[in-house]
Amino acid sequence: MPDLDFLFHPQSIAIVGTPSDPTDMQGGAVFLHALVRSGYKGDIYPVNPKLSEILGLKSYPDLLSVPQGLDYVICCLPASLTPQLIRDCALNGVKAVSIYTAGFSEAGEEGGELEQELVSLARQGGIRLIGPNCMGIYCPTTGLSYHSGFSKDPGCVGLLCQSGGNSNTLTLMGGDRGIRFSKVISYGNAADLNETDFLEYLSQDDETRVIAAYIEGIKGGPRFLKALARAAEIKPVMILKGGRTQAGTRAATSHTGALASASERWDALCRQAGAIQVYTLEEMLDLVETALYMKPPNGRRVGVIGWGGGASVTNTDACENAGLSVLTFSSQLSQQLRRFTFGPGSSVNNPVDSAVLTSPSLLSETIRIVADSKEVDLLLIHMPLATPHMALDSEAETWKAAYNAIIETGRSLDIPIALVQPCSDTPESWEVFFSLHQRCVKAGLPLYSTGSQAAQAISRYVQYHIWKSREGA
Amino acid sequence: MPDLDFLFHPQSIAIVGTPSDPTDMQGGAVFLHALVRSGYKGDIYPVNPKLSEILGLKSYPDLLSVPQGLDYVICCLPASLTPQLIRDCALNGVKAVSIYTAGFSEAGEEGGELEQELVSLARQGGIRLIGPNCMGIYCPTTGLSYHSGFSKDPGCVGLLCQSGGNSNTLTLMGGDRGIRFSKVISYGNAADLNETDFLEYLSQDDETRVIAAYIEGIKGGPRFLKALARAAEIKPVMILKGGRTQAGTRAATSHTGALASASERWDALCRQAGAIQVYTLEEMLDLVETALYMKPPNGRRVGVIGWGGGASVTNTDACENAGLSVLTFSSQLSQQLRRFTFGPGSSVNNPVDSAVLTSPSLLSETIRIVADSKEVDLLLIHMPLATPHMALDSEAETWKAAYNAIIETGRSLDIPIALVQPCSDTPESWEVFFSLHQRCVKAGLPLYSTGSQAAQAISRYVQYHIWKSREGA
Repeated sequence: MPDLDFLFHPQSIAIVGTPSDPTDMQGGAVFLHALVRSGYKGDIYPVNPKLSEILGLKSYPDLLSVPQGLDYVICCLPASLTPQLIRDCALNGVKAVSIYTAGFSEAGEEGGELEQELVSLARQGGIRLIGPNCMGIYCPTTGLSYHSGFSKDPGCVGLLCQSGGNSNTLTLMGGDRGIRFSKVISYGNAADLNETDFLEYLSQDDETRVIAAYIEGIKGGPRFLKALARAAEIKPVMILKGGRTQAGTRAATSHTGALASASERWDALCRQAGAIQVYTLEEMLDLVETALYMKPPNGRRVGVIGWGGGASVTNTDACENAGLSVLTFSSQLSQQLRRFTFGPGSSVNNPVDSAVLTSPSLLSETIRIVADSKEVDLLLIHMPLATPHMALDSEAETWKAAYNAIIETGRSLDIPIALVQPCSDTPESWEVFFSLHQRCVKAGLPLYSTGSQAAQAISRYVQYHIWKSREGA
Repeated sequence: MPDLDFLFHPQSIAIVGTPSDPTDMQGGAVFLHALVRSGYKGDIYPVNPKLSEILGLKSYPDLLSVPQGLDYVICCLPASLTPQLIRDCALNGVKAVSIYTAGFSEAGEEGGELEQELVSLARQGGIRLIGPNCMGIYCPTTGLSYHSGFSKDPGCVGLLCQSGGNSNTLTLMGGDRGIRFSKVISYGNAADLNETDFLEYLSQDDETRVIAAYIEGIKGGPRFLKALARAAEIKPVMILKGGRTQAGTRAATSHTGALASASERWDALCRQAGAIQVYTLEEMLDLVETALYMKPPNGRRVGVIGWGGGASVTNTDACENAGLSVLTFSSQLSQQLRRFTFGPGSSVNNPVDSAVLTSPSLLSETIRIVADSKEVDLLLIHMPLATPHMALDSEAETWKAAYNAIIETGRSLDIPIALVQPCSDTPESWEVFFSLHQRCVKAGLPLYSTGSQAAQAISRYVQYHIWKSREGA
């Protein structure tokens, strides 16, 4: 297993093919802006024969004019010029080249031959390649970045992503939810370094606690399977397979040259290796958040507690549909609850639903009684719509007091709690949701905007821990 | 079939059981505030023996003191006092009573007997009952309402909802998305008027163009099936069944006294009747929006057009997984597109993905060529994340210009267009999404925040129109 750590900590970077107009956000300018805005501390060498300076940085006419011993080169040249660039990189002593340029194996046979030529030249020159047809690496600790909007703060999620666009979406959307990354790798056609190399690296990387992967095709199934199983034994690995359908595979082939692999084969592989499969980018972020914030439940038994009969029904359905169990409480437990969650319209028999839950102290006591019963492995608490529609301040106060009670009680329980907080698609509602979300995750309570999202994510997370405990046994 | 129109246009309403403190938002105060804030034009009679006035309205000690000939009574009394109220209502000449009170059939055998007593008394008195254990009716044209946050503007969506809480969530969340309602009925235990009565009414109601229903249990399968099929022939009917799982049914029984019905039986019933099934409240709103804004596609063939290879792959997968078809274009069509969507990293073969789509004129031309090809029945256009992360104003400008082009071109096409616009969970991102959303739906283009939401909703909508055309044939 090669040590790829050098890829993430380059002392110097050349961007070959920066545009003459820095506001033309094609190719090189994107990388240049990203490095400058991310506070990259090493040396940056823009390369463009028509410029003497760009964004205040000296520009070089060609790579051979750049000082020797570059650590990292970002290539934005047209495909036809890339072989010569790799030769020049070898002369400079470059360690790694990230190739943004497209038009290789994803574009057909001729492009595939060109890609092979690049790999041969790189091997001869002792250079490792990322891509082609990729965005390369984001590593906040060193300021290496390819998007100006990525956070400067490092975190503990490692993302390997065959698609540059999806890596942007996941990193930006994740960032907005407060998720921070250790390393993100957009690796495109994977001509030299591939998904297995990066997976192995992230599984050994101490800065990475959770791995997320978007993969369109794999090179070398058995090696990948072994790496995946090894990684999953160490930390949760979530995988989204792009191109699960025939038409999706066609799209993937013309996107990154990925080869087809039947969904059934893929599903079996993930199951065997203990990887957590997700099916959309949003599910990926839900699972990352679950893995980051929720302590592992010991099983699938959920206690559903909340405001509102209809929401109790739909959230119970969501749990059961996702493979969690909402079991009837013992008569002792129901009796204990009945002491105070009485009154018409109440249910004390999982789901627990009662108007008295609007009292913070009774809500806390209900949570504690169910959590301590040993009859459930986790609690799902659902709240009514977060809106500016509350008729009176007293309603908003009731709602806030309930959250305080949940967060306070949640801290001291032996089992994990997850929250469902519906939210309207308005800026005002998201204002409410957003600040709550920050508060909850800080307290270690994942917060989801729908019951089905919550149930799906939690069920897959539980499944992973069941797999892991069996592997360990 | 009884004409229920009178329920929605009462000239006078008494609220029996208003609390002594109007800021105590339990029971009657909720209704009182809602009627006042919704601008209800008829007479409001609060009934509470301890008050002489509430919110500036004269309060009456009991129902018998209220002027004769009330159209509508909202009952918030304890269950034990309800039989006497119905007797008093008969003496007054009341036409309808909406019973908020819980503690009837959902609470067990004794409550069931009380519920039956109410029904008998109502029949003897010539009174129709809504509920018990419900919120009753919202009808913006008359200002009849049960939630202060509901819009005053009428629309054309009719909602029948066994759960009061879910009716709040759907109406508020829908309202925030710009969806307006003709009538919303929260009908609880359905002791007298039930889901079939309301469904028949909404199917004949000229103000209702689309019907949404949340149902936990049905009374009288064959009559319901007939009403459902008749309704679906006239307008789209979306149904969310609460209590699809065993645990969910247990929750539903304790919520509204609903009886179990196997999911398979229910699925067959909906399929046969041409109802559109949805499985979450969010899917319900997606489908309502689709039915409101999208002209019916003639089939399942989708042309996927967008920015970004990874998003092309995931959106293609989403379409195919939802039962839509992303078919390869003919070579003529691909040739036509290749004229200008050239360049490395492009795909012209469905999905269409090219950097040139950032040019508004080329994007318009691409849309028009694919739409006019007769090779697809609708277009799904996906855009990159709406964020304040765009590095430069020029990027935001490019993105805005693309939307102008899509909306302008979309107006004049023979086939429908749907848009996918990912959005981060931040107030800023939703600010962007929200204003876009308003613009798009005004132009008749439904806008979804994820590809899988879009594909699911559209596929079910197409399926409905296929069913409808077969029924008509």
